[in-house]
Amino acid sequence: MNNTAINELFSKPLSALNLGLQSFADNLAAAGAPVVHVDWKPPAGGDTAAMAALDRLAAGARVDIEAANAEAVRRILSAKPTVTGIGLALDTVPGMATDLILHSGPPVAWKDMCGPMRGAIMGGLIYEGLAGTPEEAERLASSGTIRFDSCHHHDAVGPMAGVMTAHMPVWIVENKAFGNTAYCTLNEGLGKVLRYGAYGPEVIERLRWMRDELAPVLSEALAARGQLDMKTIIAQVLQMGDEGHNRNRAGTSIVIRELAPFIVALDRPRDQLAKVLSFLNANDHFFLNLTMPSAKCTVDAAAGIEGSSIITTMARNGTEFGIRLSGLPGRWFTGPAGVVDGLYLPGYGPEHAARDIGDSVITETSGIGGFAMAAAPAIVKFVGGSPADAVNVTLRMYEITAAENDAYQIPALDFRGTPTGIDVRKVVDTGILPAINTGIAHKDPGIGMVGAGLVKPPENAFRDALIAFADRYAK
Amino acid sequence: MNNTAINELFSKPLSALNLGLQSFADNLAAAGAPVVHVDWKPPAGGDTAAMAALDRLAAGARVDIEAANAEAVRRILSAKPTVTGIGLALDTVPGMATDLILHSGPPVAWKDMCGPMRGAIMGGLIYEGLAGTPEEAERLASSGTIRFDSCHHHDAVGPMAGVMTAHMPVWIVENKAFGNTAYCTLNEGLGKVLRYGAYGPEVIERLRWMRDELAPVLSEALAARGQLDMKTIIAQVLQMGDEGHNRNRAGTSIVIRELAPFIVALDRPRDQLAKVLSFLNANDHFFLNLTMPSAKCTVDAAAGIEGSSIITTMARNGTEFGIRLSGLPGRWFTGPAGVVDGLYLPGYGPEHAARDIGDSVITETSGIGGFAMAAAPAIVKFVGGSPADAVNVTLRMYEITAAENDAYQIPALDFRGTPTGIDVRKVVDTGILPAINTGIAHKDPGIGMVGAGLVKPPENAFRDALIAFADRYAK
Repeated sequence: MNNTAINELFSKPLSALNLGLQSFADNLAAAGAPVVHVDWKPPAGGDTAAMAALDRLAAGARVDIEAANAEAVRRILSAKPTVTGIGLALDTVPGMATDLILHSGPPVAWKDMCGPMRGAIMGGLIYEGLAGTPEEAERLASSGTIRFDSCHHHDAVGPMAGVMTAHMPVWIVENKAFGNTAYCTLNEGLGKVLRYGAYGPEVIERLRWMRDELAPVLSEALAARGQLDMKTIIAQVLQMGDEGHNRNRAGTSIVIRELAPFIVALDRPRDQLAKVLSFLNANDHFFLNLTMPSAKCTVDAAAGIEGSSIITTMARNGTEFGIRLSGLPGRWFTGPAGVVDGLYLPGYGPEHAARDIGDSVITETSGIGGFAMAAAPAIVKFVGGSPADAVNVTLRMYEITAAENDAYQIPALDFRGTPTGIDVRKVVDTGILPAINTGIAHKDPGIGMVGAGLVKPPENAFRDALIAFADRYAK
Repeated sequence: MNNTAINELFSKPLSALNLGLQSFADNLAAAGAPVVHVDWKPPAGGDTAAMAALDRLAAGARVDIEAANAEAVRRILSAKPTVTGIGLALDTVPGMATDLILHSGPPVAWKDMCGPMRGAIMGGLIYEGLAGTPEEAERLASSGTIRFDSCHHHDAVGPMAGVMTAHMPVWIVENKAFGNTAYCTLNEGLGKVLRYGAYGPEVIERLRWMRDELAPVLSEALAARGQLDMKTIIAQVLQMGDEGHNRNRAGTSIVIRELAPFIVALDRPRDQLAKVLSFLNANDHFFLNLTMPSAKCTVDAAAGIEGSSIITTMARNGTEFGIRLSGLPGRWFTGPAGVVDGLYLPGYGPEHAARDIGDSVITETSGIGGFAMAAAPAIVKFVGGSPADAVNVTLRMYEITAAENDAYQIPALDFRGTPTGIDVRKVVDTGILPAINTGIAHKDPGIGMVGAGLVKPPENAFRDALIAFADRYAK
């Protein structure tokens, strides 16, 4: 450009087009210059190895990734999660044993476990009668005679600490479209409960009542009623202000109204039946332990598809957050569990919080929970933020997913289907991390829930998974 | 303006500002002219008498209208509707008698009643044992020996035909803040039911079962549980996708879960209790007959305030739509009942529809129902339109109301309170009519529900009320 051209340029009104950093545009605007800001970021946040992995996959793959993902999505969308009954973990969960304790998230050794997970395991040992006191339980847990494993390795999921022991009752949820099954314990309510790391006498007593009365009553009522079609119920609750993870008031209400006519007809003492119905009414989160295995058996059907970059597991153990990809079955990619940004119960704050924990993020993995927050604007009273934030969270998730659910629809978005089937390539490419809402446990064993909020999963888990996926599938 | 100035004017680019008719702006825009359209309408739609009434009130009133309306709004917002029990209409409803039948809407004589109201009255006479056949019932109803009156004259409300006879069980809902009470029959479900004008044997049999089993079971369970705080429950259902008029799935669910623990403990045959819980579960509209008397006792407390232009009654009898103003107690202002614009059940269409009918518009009068549609986007599957329409309906209602409800909030509007307290001056001034969603009855007696939708009330009822209000209160 010669001087004349330059002079000519600056003699005309100038408009700036700003790419990337918003602050540059703000400075220009503050100086009175017309400026258009484009919210651009380099792919993979500029990470060279991740960008190279995306490039290698784009250049050519050994399999048809799009076809593989289409098959994964087809399986997720055609799943038919159905509650078929309740059983004892030992009798139903594959590989369950009396010396085995299952926990949430990727596998983790006792020495690396966070406070609430340790607390829940100590409570589990007391519940099983293997320890008499918390001190005994702690010694036993660290002795090496008790085995630990991830729920996910046993077709199971568990909220928060996710502790499942041999003699706990579990929901049995079958995916009728594919024949696979998932298991989950029954929800204990909020406050001082095992899954948040509490193990006091009231916790153990409640667990025993759940085994001896709650589970048999529900099991008999379910047998009398017939199986519960969870796909239809989840579709309904998304039209009733639930999002299927941390707001479950509608879901719990529907389970109560569907089972109550059969509970009332059972040949059991009336005070026992009344106690069951009172417990359900007092516990809005009861439905969570039904959405979780429903989501689990839904995404499990899409696992192990050669060439699919769809995420089929996300899970946290309070120490690490981990994901698994459909096309890389059995491999966990992990990063440090995040700190939850949320609302705290009176008397508690971030200094009391454990890190992100639990398998409940299986709901987001299947396209509900945080991904469906636009359906549940009132959830912001529980997890923080504004209703507009809730809508924006959902809208953002369409950018990292492969499909929209035809059954799970969001009325406020003109009945648009929930964003479903997270593609790890899109997560890394856009830098948009899956939106997860979650409860917050106290960091020490024995205390319980202290709040709820939103949490960011660690970027490197997705980056590492993508690179391993490219290593396996790029030409 | 001289010629030079005119030439100067037309030598510059012209922009048009268009007031009123959109089509003028469209024509200019189509011709390529820049045009800004302002959606202006003359006050009171240009009606001279109505404009004069507004002017007379604006020029000065004999009382402080703003203070009177503030008091009306204070009473509406501080109401505490509470379900205290169930009784027989004859024993509880003021002025009820065995030769009296109450109906919805303003008073109407047998000869002027629409088909579904006649059908419901015939069914009511058969239910009471005063007639053996529909023919006998019709003769009796037209004979003059049976008296008819508006529910509203007896502290009562009834959906659709709103027929209440002496031996029907009724909800008793007390406004704990002001001590007044409202009554409403129990909801029969959808389809072939008395309130839609059906009177076949299954309708009568169901009504007798409701009297002999349903009402006693609910009454005993309620006594065991304690009174139901309807204000809290309605606040909750607005966060669960209900709007409190035609979407009641959440409300019905909450009533079930609150009562089930006490129903199960009653000393009655288990199959009787199971039938009650099954009936409730199968009838999502069960809650409507609780919101209606809750709304009725709420707005009734605001009736009879000298100088208040707040509307305290809206009601339809299928022939006429009528309103009453707080400051003109006892006077009905009526116009022809409208035709409902909505969705029809298979096999039916507008040619089968009765005109707008029922007292359920008491919900809108109290600031929920159509006024809260933004809280219930999924209702459009029942009444037609899009979720955006539902939001816009609510937003429009803020223009004709005096307050926003502090307890009844809409999550999607950032927890903004529902538009509450309709000011007849604003309705006439803006020409914005109250938004009402409603069921549609078949026009002939004996058939039942054929659809649901939105309906416009007649403008002249509001205009006539305003003029009467100005006659009474302008200086």
